[in-house]
Amino acid sequence: MVKLDQLDTPVAVVDLDRLEANIAGLQSYLDRYGIAHRPHIKTHKIPRIAEMQMEAGAVGITCQKLGEAEVMADAGLEDIFLPYNIVGEAKLQRLVALARRVRLSLTADSAYTVRGYAAAAQGAGLELSVLVEFDSGAQRCGVQSPQEAAALARQIARSPGLRFGGLMTFPHTEESDPFVVETRRLLASETIPVERVSYGGTPTMWQAHTRSELTEYRAGTYVYGDRKTMTTGAMSLEDCAFRVLTTVVSRPVPERGILDGGSKTFSSDLSGLEGHGLLIEYPEAEFYGMSEEHGYVDFSRCQRRPEIGERVTVIPNHVCVVTNLFDEIIGVRQGEVEVVWPVAARGKLR
Amino acid sequence: MVKLDQLDTPVAVVDLDRLEANIAGLQSYLDRYGIAHRPHIKTHKIPRIAEMQMEAGAVGITCQKLGEAEVMADAGLEDIFLPYNIVGEAKLQRLVALARRVRLSLTADSAYTVRGYAAAAQGAGLELSVLVEFDSGAQRCGVQSPQEAAALARQIARSPGLRFGGLMTFPHTEESDPFVVETRRLLASETIPVERVSYGGTPTMWQAHTRSELTEYRAGTYVYGDRKTMTTGAMSLEDCAFRVLTTVVSRPVPERGILDGGSKTFSSDLSGLEGHGLLIEYPEAEFYGMSEEHGYVDFSRCQRRPEIGERVTVIPNHVCVVTNLFDEIIGVRQGEVEVVWPVAARGKLR
Repeated sequence: MVKLDQLDTPVAVVDLDRLEANIAGLQSYLDRYGIAHRPHIKTHKIPRIAEMQMEAGAVGITCQKLGEAEVMADAGLEDIFLPYNIVGEAKLQRLVALARRVRLSLTADSAYTVRGYAAAAQGAGLELSVLVEFDSGAQRCGVQSPQEAAALARQIARSPGLRFGGLMTFPHTEESDPFVVETRRLLASETIPVERVSYGGTPTMWQAHTRSELTEYRAGTYVYGDRKTMTTGAMSLEDCAFRVLTTVVSRPVPERGILDGGSKTFSSDLSGLEGHGLLIEYPEAEFYGMSEEHGYVDFSRCQRRPEIGERVTVIPNHVCVVTNLFDEIIGVRQGEVEVVWPVAARGKLR
Repeated sequence: MVKLDQLDTPVAVVDLDRLEANIAGLQSYLDRYGIAHRPHIKTHKIPRIAEMQMEAGAVGITCQKLGEAEVMADAGLEDIFLPYNIVGEAKLQRLVALARRVRLSLTADSAYTVRGYAAAAQGAGLELSVLVEFDSGAQRCGVQSPQEAAALARQIARSPGLRFGGLMTFPHTEESDPFVVETRRLLASETIPVERVSYGGTPTMWQAHTRSELTEYRAGTYVYGDRKTMTTGAMSLEDCAFRVLTTVVSRPVPERGILDGGSKTFSSDLSGLEGHGLLIEYPEAEFYGMSEEHGYVDFSRCQRRPEIGERVTVIPNHVCVVTNLFDEIIGVRQGEVEVVWPVAARGKLR
């Protein structure tokens, strides 16, 4: 068996016991409250982990890009939600091909996107389920008012080939439930039911049961955990299944050490935190800077400091963008390599 | 012929006329001053572009990671400089295999790294050329004083299997030449010549001729250009060969537009700038935020604003980390696709 310390660095490793516990833990919480779980694969991008989530009780998966959904469909996943405005002829053709082989649900936040779906569905003789995305205050995508949401729901409902699938938002806030209630009220007289209500986000996952309107939850990061999720309190250090192993390659001055991973390994996504990651063996160290292949660490506040050649384990700020930088993830159990997973949906930008 | 506007987005495109002009331009400048050029492939990671650089007159190439060098060697590149402390048994074995098939030169900034190279070279019956990296004030890797540089040069020179190859730094500053002069003086009595002096960096490339000690220059970004390089004055907007084409997928409010590329397309590397890129068609727009697959743009200051489905062309802040996110780069000439290059050395973290 290959042991953890025999792996060359930088390398991304996942503790399988912890991964399984994270999958079981959120599923069990959502089951308790009768909330469907539809995990977001953007964090892992690995078909086998999606299967593990399905085996645990998920109703389907969520993919952010069409290319990710195609990889998951190829691997046999059968129920896929794409909460992304799919626009343009090239993608709509791929969407139709995908809808022919999996149970697909879609999202729109504009009349333009809905018209594209309607034309594609009619041309292909398909029925597509389209949810309306609304903005819960994050100022990302999404319609801005229940009136807009209702208008878009009506457009979907009267488009041949489309079915109004419900409402979705990210993240969920105090504004989410009132928005859903009001949209439902506006549509009530027209017998356009709001059946599915989908909220998402790992930082707020344990509050899902406090939202009375949602029927489905989407979480991604919960499988691995990261430094950002730790700071929100949603996961502890012990819950974090994902690590990047690095090696100290330079100690130019007594205070400073250089790791063999930089922005090409950790991404530059600070996620609002100070520093680029938590060093497990040196929690007082400051991972203060990076170039593409070097990570700069200030060890001033550490009593013991590493030698060149020593291994340092890093929990990155935002794991989803880190997994996208690795071609493979090493699954370990009790310190030994059990599986090597290609990150099959990595780099699927389209 | 496939035209630019037929490519689905997000897509990374390079203008081949401009790429060729950039390669020829820097080579011609360095030739004029008798400075050898050893371009850094980290920016493009594409063997064919490395060949174009060699054909233009480069003496060899520079790679940052062993895995990149292996890809370039596989493609037939024959002279490779690895300005990175290669440590650990696994990598030293690969280093030996690589040294058997290309003319390889290495870097060290510690006795530890030198001992590793010496053991590997002796074990394999090879002679390895090792340059000493010094710090010109950037506080990255590198020895801190000419005394340290001389001590390391002596260690290299007296290690069987190793040859002292000279000095290297990045970037070059006012401190670089005096450091070299003093190190040379310290080594003079021992007849350890400092033959090769290698400086690097695109922002300061046009100042290379003002450094009297350097014999070799390493530039990477100059092939493509980016927003950061534009702000340093080293390249103009017209010089930038690289673009990311995106599509507007949402217009939730009149001021805001959402592009179909976020941190998975552009990386989160701000490179000290405000915003995540320059929008060619909307230069007054502020690319103020990103999630993984969405780019958030404030069009308030633009007289004309885009519709959903419209294309927007982005020059990213730091192109080297962006090319690492794409599996392929599209080479275009006069608006038509001429070649599709796999980014062969993408994701080579080890």
